[in-house]
Amino acid sequence: MHRVKVRVVEDALDANATIAAANRADFDRAGVTVVNLMSAPGAGKTSVLERVLGDLGGIRVGVLEGDVQGSLDADRLASLHIPVTQLNTDGGFGGECHLDANMVRSALPSLPLEDLDLLVVENVGNLVCPAEFRIGEDVRIMVSSIAEGEDKPLKYPLMFRAAELVLVNKIDLLPHVDFDLDRFLHHLDAVHPGVPHMVMSARTGEGLDAFRDWLVELPARVRREVPA
Amino acid sequence: MHRVKVRVVEDALDANATIAAANRADFDRAGVTVVNLMSAPGAGKTSVLERVLGDLGGIRVGVLEGDVQGSLDADRLASLHIPVTQLNTDGGFGGECHLDANMVRSALPSLPLEDLDLLVVENVGNLVCPAEFRIGEDVRIMVSSIAEGEDKPLKYPLMFRAAELVLVNKIDLLPHVDFDLDRFLHHLDAVHPGVPHMVMSARTGEGLDAFRDWLVELPARVRREVPA
Repeated sequence: MHRVKVRVVEDALDANATIAAANRADFDRAGVTVVNLMSAPGAGKTSVLERVLGDLGGIRVGVLEGDVQGSLDADRLASLHIPVTQLNTDGGFGGECHLDANMVRSALPSLPLEDLDLLVVENVGNLVCPAEFRIGEDVRIMVSSIAEGEDKPLKYPLMFRAAELVLVNKIDLLPHVDFDLDRFLHHLDAVHPGVPHMVMSARTGEGLDAFRDWLVELPARVRREVPA
Repeated sequence: MHRVKVRVVEDALDANATIAAANRADFDRAGVTVVNLMSAPGAGKTSVLERVLGDLGGIRVGVLEGDVQGSLDADRLASLHIPVTQLNTDGGFGGECHLDANMVRSALPSLPLEDLDLLVVENVGNLVCPAEFRIGEDVRIMVSSIAEGEDKPLKYPLMFRAAELVLVNKIDLLPHVDFDLDRFLHHLDAVHPGVPHMVMSARTGEGLDAFRDWLVELPARVRREVPA
């Protein structure tokens, strides 16, 4: 039975790659750079976005909000007066624990792609499956809250390996938790050597300017790397 | 394609129920009460267990430790000198994001069931899928760290609904995070009316005695509810 199950999952992954490529072609045609933002539940994805997306210079940004249920995060981001689309994964038996390319594809008609330079897709909070499903994005960013502990890169290596940028959030809690930043970064480098990281706090604002600048420069950087 | 995918998942759930019943029969035969302990990554499952399992009076306890990869948590708990078995879900493409009944069944031969009164199964850190797969347990307990935010019951309702007891952990961080305990409990009651909860901190030890007492009394309580 286990062998049958694995075979089904691999078929799903292949279909996902096909649809992710179609998404990617649509994004490229519209000239939109796409970020897949991932983390465990409660790491602060939405809080970070709330603090940086309101002022990205001339970059026109939109958000695709993935959740099992509800639109709490989408409602928070809509107050920034940017286009936000909610995508729920609740299929009736508890909900999918990740976004896949087909779910994102189903949301494309409700996204104003032609009016965007940057689309941030906020994935379902989960440190395992989101890393297994490409959605047609240009870059994958993950948020790791220091409240989760310094061992997380060792326990969820695929997620940390999948990320092109790691945001180390809630650094304001450092005096109050058992977390050694050097040890965390050592673990991170062990599973994904050389991956860039930014230390920040969405609560105090520390470190957010660097991430905002990174996002502002991203579309031009992606265009240079992938000439039309 | 979506319909095919849903059908496959439902088949898997049916097979899971069959195997969970077989696990349950084996647990009952051995007289072992089984707890399925679930949470998001880094909520403190292992830290709570470290603080309470070392002294459960005369209750003989063992742990089945579920992780995508590695044995970090099992190594921590082994220092309590209790039987700990590691179960890795890494199937080669990133790992399963939850334990299911068949994985637990594959670990049964390596568990000294006849020598245990209580088995705690520490699930993979994830707020979605673990709630969808029974493993043959008597009770499901979830840990919610206040660092994750007060909105979590609304965003991951199935998990909070599945739990017979909710442990609200890291309460020592209350002065340092934007978390209103009353509002969290209000959300919890909205998705799972009347579910009991305990507020605690594995770091300071606050609230752990109540949970230790609860675990000590659990086997007798379960036997009363399910007469042989």
